[in-house]
Amino acid sequence: MKFSQLAVKTNKNAKSYESKNATLLIKAGFIDQVMAGVYTFLPLGTRVLFNIERIVREEMDEIGTEIFMPAIVPKELWETTGRLHTVDVLMKTVGANDASLKKNDAEYVLNSTHEEVVTPLGKKFNRSYKDLPFAFYQIQTKFRNEPRAKSGILRCREFRMKDMYSFHVSEEDLKLYYEKAKIVYAKVFERLGLGKDTLIVLASGGDFTPDYSHEFQTRLDTGEDTVFYSKKLNIAYNKEIAPSKTPETTTDETVLPKKDVQGVGLIGVEKLAKFLDIPVEKTTKTMLYKTDNGRLIAAAVRGDYKINEYKLLKIVKANSIELADHETVRKITGAEIGYAGILNLPESVELIMDDSTRGRINFETGANRTDYHTINVNFDRDIKTPSKFYDIKIAKPGDLEPQTQEPYEVFAASEVGNIFPLNTKFSKAFDYTVTDEKGKLKPVYMGCYGIGTSRLMGVIAEKFADDKGLVWPEAVAPYMLHLISLGETTKRAAEIYDAVIQSGISILWDDRDETAGTKFTDYDLIGIPYRLVVSPKTEESIEIKKRTEEKTSLITLEELIARFST
Amino acid sequence: MKFSQLAVKTNKNAKSYESKNATLLIKAGFIDQVMAGVYTFLPLGTRVLFNIERIVREEMDEIGTEIFMPAIVPKELWETTGRLHTVDVLMKTVGANDASLKKNDAEYVLNSTHEEVVTPLGKKFNRSYKDLPFAFYQIQTKFRNEPRAKSGILRCREFRMKDMYSFHVSEEDLKLYYEKAKIVYAKVFERLGLGKDTLIVLASGGDFTPDYSHEFQTRLDTGEDTVFYSKKLNIAYNKEIAPSKTPETTTDETVLPKKDVQGVGLIGVEKLAKFLDIPVEKTTKTMLYKTDNGRLIAAAVRGDYKINEYKLLKIVKANSIELADHETVRKITGAEIGYAGILNLPESVELIMDDSTRGRINFETGANRTDYHTINVNFDRDIKTPSKFYDIKIAKPGDLEPQTQEPYEVFAASEVGNIFPLNTKFSKAFDYTVTDEKGKLKPVYMGCYGIGTSRLMGVIAEKFADDKGLVWPEAVAPYMLHLISLGETTKRAAEIYDAVIQSGISILWDDRDETAGTKFTDYDLIGIPYRLVVSPKTEESIEIKKRTEEKTSLITLEELIARFST
Repeated sequence: MKFSQLAVKTNKNAKSYESKNATLLIKAGFIDQVMAGVYTFLPLGTRVLFNIERIVREEMDEIGTEIFMPAIVPKELWETTGRLHTVDVLMKTVGANDASLKKNDAEYVLNSTHEEVVTPLGKKFNRSYKDLPFAFYQIQTKFRNEPRAKSGILRCREFRMKDMYSFHVSEEDLKLYYEKAKIVYAKVFERLGLGKDTLIVLASGGDFTPDYSHEFQTRLDTGEDTVFYSKKLNIAYNKEIAPSKTPETTTDETVLPKKDVQGVGLIGVEKLAKFLDIPVEKTTKTMLYKTDNGRLIAAAVRGDYKINEYKLLKIVKANSIELADHETVRKITGAEIGYAGILNLPESVELIMDDSTRGRINFETGANRTDYHTINVNFDRDIKTPSKFYDIKIAKPGDLEPQTQEPYEVFAASEVGNIFPLNTKFSKAFDYTVTDEKGKLKPVYMGCYGIGTSRLMGVIAEKFADDKGLVWPEAVAPYMLHLISLGETTKRAAEIYDAVIQSGISILWDDRDETAGTKFTDYDLIGIPYRLVVSPKTEESIEIKKRTEEKTSLITLEELIARFST
Repeated sequence: MKFSQLAVKTNKNAKSYESKNATLLIKAGFIDQVMAGVYTFLPLGTRVLFNIERIVREEMDEIGTEIFMPAIVPKELWETTGRLHTVDVLMKTVGANDASLKKNDAEYVLNSTHEEVVTPLGKKFNRSYKDLPFAFYQIQTKFRNEPRAKSGILRCREFRMKDMYSFHVSEEDLKLYYEKAKIVYAKVFERLGLGKDTLIVLASGGDFTPDYSHEFQTRLDTGEDTVFYSKKLNIAYNKEIAPSKTPETTTDETVLPKKDVQGVGLIGVEKLAKFLDIPVEKTTKTMLYKTDNGRLIAAAVRGDYKINEYKLLKIVKANSIELADHETVRKITGAEIGYAGILNLPESVELIMDDSTRGRINFETGANRTDYHTINVNFDRDIKTPSKFYDIKIAKPGDLEPQTQEPYEVFAASEVGNIFPLNTKFSKAFDYTVTDEKGKLKPVYMGCYGIGTSRLMGVIAEKFADDKGLVWPEAVAPYMLHLISLGETTKRAAEIYDAVIQSGISILWDDRDETAGTKFTDYDLIGIPYRLVVSPKTEESIEIKKRTEEKTSLITLEELIARFST
């Protein structure tokens, strides 16, 4: 491709966006923002996106069959699973004007995911145990009604995705396949150049499974996720679910008399600790919850932690929990919201205390009295030491992995894929069963496997960029070579360009009438793996330099072609 | 691919649809209907679709640069051109439920075409004459709010399309490029196997240009368009715009006295002719129109023709015309709608008569009197012969091409592509100008170039199918070879299958435990170019047969690979 044909210009002085990938990709002319969370992929960006999708496709072909499902579908499909009313990013379509509404006033769901399409599809063709297992995948555009979309192409209102769905006669068979999918996923990230920095991370299984789901997380300083990694166990957890233990501390403090202190309008533990002149670690956060089966729970963590509702839910063994309403809080504590504490709770309330609250002397708790806090609280004197402390906190750096009692390695990461055991959630909704060997009906087990291909482009952009611009791994680079012709070398450059293309090697030729400085700066901004320069000085040779190295060397055209031919 | 992995079944007894392509493609397991006008492409269908898109992409790369624009865009873009309120197939998106609306209650347009996106994009990067010409194309999913979608994948609510847009400094440059695009389009259809049966057909330029647009029409008995082809001129017209002359007839009839005949509630010329006991050719259809500049037009064609408003508009030299309302008709004719005629019209009405009304003796016309028709009307006795007869009819088979005076060849066809000179319609709306050599601002001329890739799959399916099923041209076939293994030949078949794949040749292996009959029937239904059979009888050889021939022959594995390796 000749640079002049791109019909797009770089702009290294373009404004910076909140997200690093948007800033980099817009400056280098890979994407154009149409609105927040909606982008046009420009010529270079389209090539990178399709390179990623080609690699994903090649690997998925090992374990699935490609199909192509529609974006708009009847609302009834989403009624069947009930998700029409619960998926809070779901959009639907309606006629855009009176003439259109007059022609057809139907509404369709614009899919954010395809379980509602693929499950009835699988059911239509595969009704015997002999037909299973099978897996369909597609690479397709998806839609989400994101409220604020400020992450560039990492979280969009419209985005590209590979989604695969597998169907099995048993949970065991699903698990076998699921492990195979992990291996294929690892291969994808390996080929994309992300292999060594991408981990399988345990995450919540949502309401599909009591087990975990699995995220593929790539280490990235600008990543929006936090991974807790136990080296000893070689297990990584998403922060949202990482089991954690607070390191124990010892103290030789003297036990002081318990006291109620008035403190009006102290929002947040930092402010409270400052007011009370105690470390934040001495404060206690107590929250009241209701379970779906009508129980009342008081959950308490050390003030510098947050309560993890995912963990709490598993402990209280309910289907769902929600924060108690104002009225209930008042009834239980006799105080307004914000002053709940662990002392003197009615017997109807189950108190669940996190291990972070253990072993403290003279700690604080809400006084269950509006505007009051109790300080110098001590176990066994003011409240019985609980028979068991739980883990109901969101983990923090410094926390220990409970089994090994060793601190986690904690790092920022960005999700590049996720896989989910759906089990029978969707097959049950669509009444999808298969007959077994004896003609008996058996439920179908499903798994789903996602890779956001446009998102991946953003992660790769952020991961490898340096202060001069983008740096593309060879497998996804828009072109392998970037030829810069300086001075009166158009004929020579054209000769090289033609010969390289003839050999099936991809090349971008900066044929513009621009200064050497502009061309070199643009090369770095764009980040193609190899820079070639021809100038009157290079004579019959070509100067070659890797984007990631400073060293240049000279090469002949023949050597160049030999080196990059596959 | 092994048949068992397709996870899809053929069903030769599936119900028939209104459209031939839907019937064929559903029976053979290429597509699945999710709702009217919305389909899933199943494994075989996905491969055909992507083969078509690969060919289209390769050819478009010769004259354009690929990008990928979003499906959802801000409504403001469509407000800018005013089309938000006029495109009657346009859809928009809204949150699908309360939770989604609460997160984001914005509405976005779901593009049915991309002029509103590509014009501001072109403008953003290309502001000098030096940057032009350029052309962007994409292969993407589009949406149309079709009321009834009964044409299978020929006219869908969601469909795949290649759309290209070119930008030029002058109309001349646009025309040069436009001719290049025609050649590239012809190449695409040639490669798809449609070359010899695909013509460039002149069609209306819409409100973009006084010139024609161009459709690529493939001869197809089941096609929904009618093409009028003049062999002598080598010009083809869409029926909607074909210039036409009615063959002259001579008659030695005696002129009869003019007479008004009462005929109540005679709807349609057939009924009228029967009632009056005259040939339909003796009836006259007179319609009253108003132009946008306030003129009144009476347009008359022979009863067996329809008035062509496209032609009429060009003749009356107005921006738009519309049928006169009831009130106006009553005022002009003194009668209810349905009885307008050419006699005794007020001077305020311009009478435009089609050449089909010429040369008749004793013809009929509405009496301009409710429930009455005048018969035995004759030129010069009852009304002056017009100084000029016009062509304001929709052409019919048998009509003459006016210049050559020779009958058209008329055939059914299906549109597989169209190209449009947009001229300055969109660049003006977006105020897109470029500076010329002297720094002066010049308007940008645009063209657009569409190929419906999913539609093409439907046309190809209908075009080549025989009574046994689909017949795919090699270039788009899902696989080149279809291997059927009969009896105890699994090991031999696996050996062939692996060797063929190893050689980069695409193959479908029917590895199912089914009868020979079922496998052969399915082969014909699916329509892969070559059938291979291994059975205990074929020993070391392979039986090979073309889908379109009856003759089988034996071939060795080595010969097979040599023959199909590229």
